Amino acid sequence: MEHLFDKLERYGNSDIYPYHMPGHKRQVFGELPKEFFQRDITEIDGFDNLHQPEGILLELQDRAAALCGAEESFYLVNGSTGGILSAVSAAVPFGGHILMTRNCHKSAYHAAYLRKLKISYLYPDVLQDYDIYEAVTPAQVCLALEKEKDIDAVLVVSPTYEGRIANIREIAAVVHEKGIPLIVDEAHGAHLGLNSLIHENSCRAGADIVIQSTHKTLPALTQTALLHVNGNRINRELLKRFLHIYQTSSPSYLLMASIDNALSFVERKGSEAFGELVRQYGEMQKRLSHCRHLSFLQPDEEKQDIGKLVISTKYTDITGKQLYDILLEKYHLQMEMATESYTLAMFTIGDSSPGYERLTGALLEIDEKLFSKVKAETDKEIDDFVITEDKSAEDALPLSEAWDAETEEIPLDEAAGRYVGEFVNLYPPGVPVLVPGERMSEKLARRIVVWLKQGLTVQGIKIRKDEYLIQVLKVVHGKQSLE
Amino acid sequence: MEHLFDKLERYGNSDIYPYHMPGHKRQVFGELPKEFFQRDITEIDGFDNLHQPEGILLELQDRAAALCGAEESFYLVNGSTGGILSAVSAAVPFGGHILMTRNCHKSAYHAAYLRKLKISYLYPDVLQDYDIYEAVTPAQVCLALEKEKDIDAVLVVSPTYEGRIANIREIAAVVHEKGIPLIVDEAHGAHLGLNSLIHENSCRAGADIVIQSTHKTLPALTQTALLHVNGNRINRELLKRFLHIYQTSSPSYLLMASIDNALSFVERKGSEAFGELVRQYGEMQKRLSHCRHLSFLQPDEEKQDIGKLVISTKYTDITGKQLYDILLEKYHLQMEMATESYTLAMFTIGDSSPGYERLTGALLEIDEKLFSKVKAETDKEIDDFVITEDKSAEDALPLSEAWDAETEEIPLDEAAGRYVGEFVNLYPPGVPVLVPGERMSEKLARRIVVWLKQGLTVQGIKIRKDEYLIQVLKVVHGKQSLE
Repeated sequence: MEHLFDKLERYGNSDIYPYHMPGHKRQVFGELPKEFFQRDITEIDGFDNLHQPEGILLELQDRAAALCGAEESFYLVNGSTGGILSAVSAAVPFGGHILMTRNCHKSAYHAAYLRKLKISYLYPDVLQDYDIYEAVTPAQVCLALEKEKDIDAVLVVSPTYEGRIANIREIAAVVHEKGIPLIVDEAHGAHLGLNSLIHENSCRAGADIVIQSTHKTLPALTQTALLHVNGNRINRELLKRFLHIYQTSSPSYLLMASIDNALSFVERKGSEAFGELVRQYGEMQKRLSHCRHLSFLQPDEEKQDIGKLVISTKYTDITGKQLYDILLEKYHLQMEMATESYTLAMFTIGDSSPGYERLTGALLEIDEKLFSKVKAETDKEIDDFVITEDKSAEDALPLSEAWDAETEEIPLDEAAGRYVGEFVNLYPPGVPVLVPGERMSEKLARRIVVWLKQGLTVQGIKIRKDEYLIQVLKVVHGKQSLE
Repeated sequence: MEHLFDKLERYGNSDIYPYHMPGHKRQVFGELPKEFFQRDITEIDGFDNLHQPEGILLELQDRAAALCGAEESFYLVNGSTGGILSAVSAAVPFGGHILMTRNCHKSAYHAAYLRKLKISYLYPDVLQDYDIYEAVTPAQVCLALEKEKDIDAVLVVSPTYEGRIANIREIAAVVHEKGIPLIVDEAHGAHLGLNSLIHENSCRAGADIVIQSTHKTLPALTQTALLHVNGNRINRELLKRFLHIYQTSSPSYLLMASIDNALSFVERKGSEAFGELVRQYGEMQKRLSHCRHLSFLQPDEEKQDIGKLVISTKYTDITGKQLYDILLEKYHLQMEMATESYTLAMFTIGDSSPGYERLTGALLEIDEKLFSKVKAETDKEIDDFVITEDKSAEDALPLSEAWDAETEEIPLDEAAGRYVGEFVNLYPPGVPVLVPGERMSEKLARRIVVWLKQGLTVQGIKIRKDEYLIQVLKVVHGKQSLE
């Protein structure tokens, strides 16, 4: 079996002179190391074409399919974003109806906008001690499919950004009962199923299309991903068409070589590497169980992925963002993200003992100095509302209509009752709190102010001279969009 | 001014431990050099966010804008493909009407499909001795705009793949006269306007949006590009929305750093490097003028870009593809592409004396052994038809309708008169010879067989047991799509 990077090296070391792109001609320019230029090529003889693979790229994709339990796999160079846009576009006809979890990545919303889809949402439960979404359940999917009869495809995210894993096996059975396909956004689970100590992946559990970010939890370069497909519920030709549309016609061989490299590493040394991850992560959790104030989402073979360390500050006197800042500024530890209630750290097979040591030590030390939170009465109402509101009973406008409608910018504190014209996302991870066409509530407007004052990033809100501003629809069905 | 790669190096060399993506955690895996892993990060503190730039990425984009003569510029990590999809989506309303050159990149067709646009084509003249499209002229644009009154935007490609440069200054004036925007696909002209010896770029010539591939003619990594915007004919917020939609939410910092690195190199050393390109390219052309059979498209300040060497084999006894093969197999010189009539080599500031020397020597040697072509009478009719047919007078179906219609696979030799259901592209560069919804002619069907027998790649044609097959529409307007 030939590896892409070896082949790039051989070409780079040959006496063949390049009268083709890229323009650097494998010479070194500026400050970038020579390694970048030497192996960066385009679709020349012998190097196949990602959009019509017949040679080495087809072999590599077939190998990825075998490793992950798919009939067919595709290398992605525009991230999981390109995969989700393609999957939704291929699985749901233009103007069709998609059922998706509310905590989907923004690319799922973008696909729905591009294809003018009707969206019905699955609202997963909230894990109260952490204020994070639980994985969606088979029963929730079943109920939603009973209620809405014309769903064309179902899209769920598993594992979630925080590591909650859904029962894809049962969800697939429920979805397939209706004769429609299940798409799983497994962007955070490219490592699933690659070792007996790790949860199985959605591909083997019966999903029709699965999208995985190889840069998130496997050692490939940022912007790389995989799309897997199984069964006959997906029109493969249409899927290939959309992969072709949403991805560059000049894909980077460096990015593609890094996918091959990561998967080959897993094949050769995955057993040892994942064994070490499980051992060290378990040790860390054991030591952290001595914390008196901070609490940690426990790994759980069924429901919680091992790579994520979710550190709840909810019952302490600091926010997740404050913990994040302390860890960065005092301890030089860069976390993945933080919200009001928790801080998230990620562990992969790339971590080593000092990584586990330094964070464990820092958290034990910080925990010593924390106090339990005394809840003020005024916080109470706000606390009921932790992530987002269930908008399913409301008269929301379709996304594709609302996002294109005429808007006006108004102060956030005057927006209650108005239909918003922009996505309002808490970032990261960028899951929408409000989707264009949904109404702002008083509660949410107040909550957004709290988030902003805590230093969290809320996309869709502009700040001008200490005033918070938001885009709302000017006119809805011929009348102003006030209640 | 801080450079992105320097900043990535400083972060990589700091004592900050990464509990965030990417999963490799800056450690080396497998065969990929350490340089790839060490500097590959995600959107962490201090590194800004491409989709909402406020820090270093905004600074770098502003700098690109100043260098290229734009009011606002955007780094692209999904190639020019992502830029063209975004530009067309922002400039033309859903279901609107676009006027574009027939030799546009497939991404322009894809944008039209996604947004269900009506397409009117500009058919540039053909440069007969080379069988390539000329640049489109201001008069052609003017006539087309007189004929079609409801055009929302105009898209032209300049320079073309073969280096033909349009008079963008006059075309912009004609287009703006109608109050609509001009998009220029300048993917092959990222080097334009960066030196007084090189033709000015379309940005300075008055285009509203310009897309440039920084990896094609500048020394940035494959898959990188820039989008520039000027004036108020483009809704900037809508443009940003589509850039956000069509590009990954995990853009590669290595790709972005390579854009910065390439532009900085041009700022510091461009004068010398472009001077050398012009000098060596001119020397080469002078020596090649001694060829007796091969002919070369001459650089021309107004009309022909300096980087492309178009080698015509039209009046010799070999095809462009045969020349391409001889150069690769005997001389180890890898050309950019070949067609029936010519071979294309690219020169950039990455080329050195041996590059010019080896190709010049090889071409002089090959030319000695060639014979002038004796035209057979049977070739005559075929020769009238060199690139594609003007379909503007035909009753073609809209792309967005035809590409989604039901198709059947039939032998190519039975396809004359049928509406095709797939793009038929001569690749590279992948410009459509036939667009879904257009009719196959007998002449074109015969021509495609000639191309395939010459070893050229014709996308959209399947080969099974020596039979050529094509997808055609089953039913058109209720009747079978026969003439």
